[in-house]
Amino acid sequence: MSTASSPKAAVVLLSGGLDSATVLAMARAEGYICHALSIDYGQRHGAELAAAARVAAAGGAATQRTVTVNLDAIGGSALTDAAIAVPAAPSVGIPITYVPARNTVFLAIALGYAEVLHAAAIFVGVNAVDYSGYPDCRPAFIDAFQALAQIATKAGVEGHAPRIMAPLLNLSKADIIRRGQALGVDYGLTVSCYNADPLGRACGRCDACRLRANGFRDAGVPDPTPYLRG
Amino acid sequence: MSTASSPKAAVVLLSGGLDSATVLAMARAEGYICHALSIDYGQRHGAELAAAARVAAAGGAATQRTVTVNLDAIGGSALTDAAIAVPAAPSVGIPITYVPARNTVFLAIALGYAEVLHAAAIFVGVNAVDYSGYPDCRPAFIDAFQALAQIATKAGVEGHAPRIMAPLLNLSKADIIRRGQALGVDYGLTVSCYNADPLGRACGRCDACRLRANGFRDAGVPDPTPYLRG
Repeated sequence: MSTASSPKAAVVLLSGGLDSATVLAMARAEGYICHALSIDYGQRHGAELAAAARVAAAGGAATQRTVTVNLDAIGGSALTDAAIAVPAAPSVGIPITYVPARNTVFLAIALGYAEVLHAAAIFVGVNAVDYSGYPDCRPAFIDAFQALAQIATKAGVEGHAPRIMAPLLNLSKADIIRRGQALGVDYGLTVSCYNADPLGRACGRCDACRLRANGFRDAGVPDPTPYLRG
Repeated sequence: MSTASSPKAAVVLLSGGLDSATVLAMARAEGYICHALSIDYGQRHGAELAAAARVAAAGGAATQRTVTVNLDAIGGSALTDAAIAVPAAPSVGIPITYVPARNTVFLAIALGYAEVLHAAAIFVGVNAVDYSGYPDCRPAFIDAFQALAQIATKAGVEGHAPRIMAPLLNLSKADIIRRGQALGVDYGLTVSCYNADPLGRACGRCDACRLRANGFRDAGVPDPTPYLRG
């Protein structure tokens, strides 16, 4: 592909959710040629992956690929282990929906892909404000992964490791929605719910639904989410 | 499983090759209850994975699991991209058999598994002496990943991130073989060759074969490797 060695190519981790759809729009607005990377990690909410394809197309990604990694083989989270229920009530501390080392795994795969593409940046939609208490959504995590990227790769050895870009890190959910709306993101295409049905309809009760609904309310933007109940 | 919360549990990355078989023996000798983790990453040398199961059983691993991640979807290496040939002659610089960010991906998955098991350590057979020029086989890489592990996980937040143990880091291939022989490792079960046939027979010509054969010669240990030619 002709964009493979472009200095402005970027890998954009695209889940199909609200946050990464916004990140794709922000990366495009900065002039990057965006290669969307979706990860099928055995998550319950497979509707997200269908959403990712729609969001990549609507958001102007140059390419989209999906890498499969069966994190369900190691278990440990309500999102990947069928024996653990997704809680309906808010939880204290790091919740059971935390997938051990998920963002580390995602960024590691993105780092390999960035190396293949000679990409200048990796965009990831982690957020430290409405972050559900996940340790791998904090600024210190992004800094530590950037340091690793400088060491771990051929590009890093040659002095041009990709920059890890987390433009949502310090934005509230409402700020993210306002930013995306200004950039023309169609949030009706996105799926955030941990319990979404195959059509992408949301439960309205899980942590992800609550954060999302509150974000639309606080942003004063109509919520386009299709809900299962009411 | 009763060992899940043992403070002496360890995840051992086990490829089925000579190095990781030695690491498993070293971890066992240190008293760890070893949970072998093998990664099927679309590598050409699938015979390694069959070897991993044999090595785990013979080496006293408590459990063995395989996680699949299709790094072939991002290409870029002779080991995962059928369009790129494995070179028969020694190469200069970082060779084409380098799989972008491979050890970062492997350690990331191991980090998630260690979190699920509450493991105290992750053992990995990277080696900086006979390291084939891979950037993710250097001491600085292990240090950077250790720093990341402290930040990225629930265990790290709670002050007990797993220790990243790379006991082969500064050993020559001959040293590794001597160490393993003293611990009773059966190297006849292991497969190192990038071009091994389905029975695990080695080509005798690739980088991995050369390093391995030289190691046995330098250690003064008979080479048990089954070769395809002669």
